[in-house]
Amino acid sequence: MMEPRFSRRGFLVGAGGATALGAGGVAFDGAHAPAAAQEGGLPDYAAWKDADALIIHSRNTMETKRGAVGSGGLTASDRLFIRNNLPSPDASITADPDAWEIAIEGVARPGTMTLGQLKRLGVTSEASVLQCSGNGRGFFTHGASGSQWLTGAAGCVIWTGVPVAAIVEAMGGPAEGATLMTSTGGETLPDGVDPASIMVERSVPIAAHAHAMIAFEMNGAPLPLTHGGPARVVIPGYYGVNNVKYVKRLAFGTQESGAKIQTSGYRVRPVGEGGAASQPSMWDMTVKSWVTHPLTDPGSGRVQIHGVAFAGPERASGVAVSLDGGQSWEQARFYGPDLGRFAWRSFVMEADLAPGVYAVASRATAEGGSVQPEDFPPNERGYGHNGWRAHAVELTVA
Amino acid sequence: MMEPRFSRRGFLVGAGGATALGAGGVAFDGAHAPAAAQEGGLPDYAAWKDADALIIHSRNTMETKRGAVGSGGLTASDRLFIRNNLPSPDASITADPDAWEIAIEGVARPGTMTLGQLKRLGVTSEASVLQCSGNGRGFFTHGASGSQWLTGAAGCVIWTGVPVAAIVEAMGGPAEGATLMTSTGGETLPDGVDPASIMVERSVPIAAHAHAMIAFEMNGAPLPLTHGGPARVVIPGYYGVNNVKYVKRLAFGTQESGAKIQTSGYRVRPVGEGGAASQPSMWDMTVKSWVTHPLTDPGSGRVQIHGVAFAGPERASGVAVSLDGGQSWEQARFYGPDLGRFAWRSFVMEADLAPGVYAVASRATAEGGSVQPEDFPPNERGYGHNGWRAHAVELTVA
Repeated sequence: MMEPRFSRRGFLVGAGGATALGAGGVAFDGAHAPAAAQEGGLPDYAAWKDADALIIHSRNTMETKRGAVGSGGLTASDRLFIRNNLPSPDASITADPDAWEIAIEGVARPGTMTLGQLKRLGVTSEASVLQCSGNGRGFFTHGASGSQWLTGAAGCVIWTGVPVAAIVEAMGGPAEGATLMTSTGGETLPDGVDPASIMVERSVPIAAHAHAMIAFEMNGAPLPLTHGGPARVVIPGYYGVNNVKYVKRLAFGTQESGAKIQTSGYRVRPVGEGGAASQPSMWDMTVKSWVTHPLTDPGSGRVQIHGVAFAGPERASGVAVSLDGGQSWEQARFYGPDLGRFAWRSFVMEADLAPGVYAVASRATAEGGSVQPEDFPPNERGYGHNGWRAHAVELTVA
Repeated sequence: MMEPRFSRRGFLVGAGGATALGAGGVAFDGAHAPAAAQEGGLPDYAAWKDADALIIHSRNTMETKRGAVGSGGLTASDRLFIRNNLPSPDASITADPDAWEIAIEGVARPGTMTLGQLKRLGVTSEASVLQCSGNGRGFFTHGASGSQWLTGAAGCVIWTGVPVAAIVEAMGGPAEGATLMTSTGGETLPDGVDPASIMVERSVPIAAHAHAMIAFEMNGAPLPLTHGGPARVVIPGYYGVNNVKYVKRLAFGTQESGAKIQTSGYRVRPVGEGGAASQPSMWDMTVKSWVTHPLTDPGSGRVQIHGVAFAGPERASGVAVSLDGGQSWEQARFYGPDLGRFAWRSFVMEADLAPGVYAVASRATAEGGSVQPEDFPPNERGYGHNGWRAHAVELTVA
C-alpha cells in the first residue's frame, strides 16, 4: 500500500459524511432556511420520509445522507432528496390522479387531456438519476449561494408514465419547426407577484422528448405529491429542474419560456456575473461518481468500498477507485441489476486496508469516452460540480 | 374483434380483483384467522405498510391487491406481501444489524460471524420474484386449506447482500460430499412445544447456493423486520419459504432438515394425501403471469393491458395475451428495465375494445421453452398454481 498523500485542498472527513461540509461550506442564502430553523423535523408534505436518512436543509430542500443511498442501484422513495422551487400544491390534487388535466399545445391537434386519457395512449418505464443542478455545491470554495448540497441531492428511481412521443403522435405531431418542449408546473402562485418571476416553467431541446414521459408512478407506487404527483415530466439524463412537477401544460414551439427560472436561473456563468439567456442552461447531466461506504473507520483488513456512478444521458461504462488521493487507480466492478443507460450503477472495489489514512476517490467514465474531471471550475451559482477530488473522502483506519 | 366465449369454469369478475375469490374460494383453515378478525387493520410489526394496497388475510398473511402491483417492474416495499410462518422476533433485533450473528456450519472452517463481518467478504444485488408457495391457492376449486391467496402473494424487489458463495469460500469450502444447504430462522419458539414441529428451517439443493445471498437490504433500504431483517437468506428463483428470515444458521451437509416445514410441509401431493419427504418439495418456481390492469370497465376505445410475467430460475422470454378466453392470442411487449433473469417483467398489449365482455388471459413463456399451462392440477395444499385460465379476468366494457 502506498503512503497516502493529499492535495492542498481539504478532503471530506469521515463522520458518516452526514454532517461534514466541503472546504467551501458557507452560510445559506436568504432563500433557504437552514435545517436548524426546522423545528420538529419533516414538514407535513414529506412526513412519510425517513428522517434518519436525510439532511434537512430547509422545508423544501432535503438531501440523502451520503451513507444512506443504499447499495442496490435504486434509491428508496423515502430516502430520495427533495428540492422544491415553490411550496407544493394542496395534497388534494393527488386524490384522483386520473382526473388531473394537462394542456398539450404546439401540436397539430392541441387540447387538454386528463391523465386517465393519456394513460390509454401508451406506457413506459425507465430508471433514471434525478439530480439537482446544485448537487455538490457544498464542495465549491467560492461561496456559491443556495443549498449547500453535498452528494445527496441525487437518487436513482424507476419512473413509469406515458411516453411524450406517444402523446405527440396521437395529437398529430409537433408544430412545424418546433425546436423546444416547454413544461409548466401546477404550483399555486401567490397574488400580487409577476408570475414570470417565480413560476416553474422549463424549456428543453425538442430532441429530449423522444425519451421523456409524463410520469405517474415512482418505484412501483403512485407518484406522491412530494415528488410531483399526480404527474410530472421526466426527462432521463436531464437535471432535476427540467423534470417539472404537477405538470399542467406541455407545449412545443420555438420560444424559450420567459419565466425567470429559464431566462436567468439555472445558467452557468463565471463567478460574479448575472444570469442571462445567452449562457448555457442546466440541461443534460455529466459523468459523475462518489464513494458511499465506508465513511468511518471500518477497522483494518478486507473491506468492500462501494459507491455510485452515472453519466447523464450516456451509460456509465466504468469507474476507477483511488485510495491515495488520485496517485494510483484501480478498476472497480459494477454489481447488481443494470437498470439502463440513464440509471446509476452501484460499484464495489475490494481492498485490504492496513492502519493508516486513506484519501478515497472514485472517477467514472462514460460510454462515449468522457471521464469525470479532477476539478470543476467554480461558477456563480455552484452548479454541476463533478470533480472527483472534492468528492473524495478521508478515511482513517486505526 | 371475435365474440368472446367462456369455458365452463368461472373467470374472476372485475371489481378491482381486490375482493374477488376464485371459483374455489373456501373457508380459511384454523391456522389462519380471516381478515375480518383483524380489528384495526395492520399489526404493529407491519404498521408502515400501505393498507390500501393490501388484502389482510390475517396478522401474518397479507397480499398485494391485483391492481396495486405497480407497472415499473418493481414492487414497492410498502406494497409487498407478508407471509410469516411464526410471529416475528422482537423489533430490537434490527437495532444494530451488523451485530446480528449467523453460525456457518458444514464448511472447512465453521464458525459464527456477525453480519458486519460477513459484509466485508463481498456484496451482490439481485432483483428477484418473492412468491409464496400457495400464491393462487384461491383459484383452486377443491378447497385446499391455507390462506386463499389470489395473485398477490408475490412481488419483485431488489435484494442486496453477501453472496453465500463468498462466505463459503472464505470458510474453506463446503464439507466434502455436501448436497444440501440448510437455513434456520431466528424466530423465538414457544416453550413446551417440540421445536421440530414449528421451527422454520429449510434445506435446498446445494447448487442453489451459487446465486444465494444473505440479504441485508431490500429496495435500497435496510431489510425491515417485517421481511426478515436484519438478515435473511435469498435464493433467487425459489419459492418464498426457502428464503429464511432472521437467519441465524447456514449449514452444508447431506441430511435434509428434520423440521416439519421440510419433512412434510411444502410437499406437493394428490388431494387427500398426507405430506412426506418422498414428495417434491416447493423449491424452484415455475413460469407464470397475470394481468393487472384493467380490472374494471375502462370504457371503450384504445386501452393498455398490463401485467407481470416471470419464470422462476429462468428468464421470462415472452408473454401472449388473449381477450377471448384463450381462443386467440397476441404477443404482448415487455417494457421497462430488465432487472435480470430472476425478476419479473412488466408487459403491455395495446387493444381497441368495443363494448362487450372480454375474458382477458395472459400466458408466459420461459427462455428454456416451457409455457404457462392452461390448467394446473389440484394438489392437497394448493401449491404452485400457474394455470392461465383460472388467473384470467372477465372485463365488461360498456
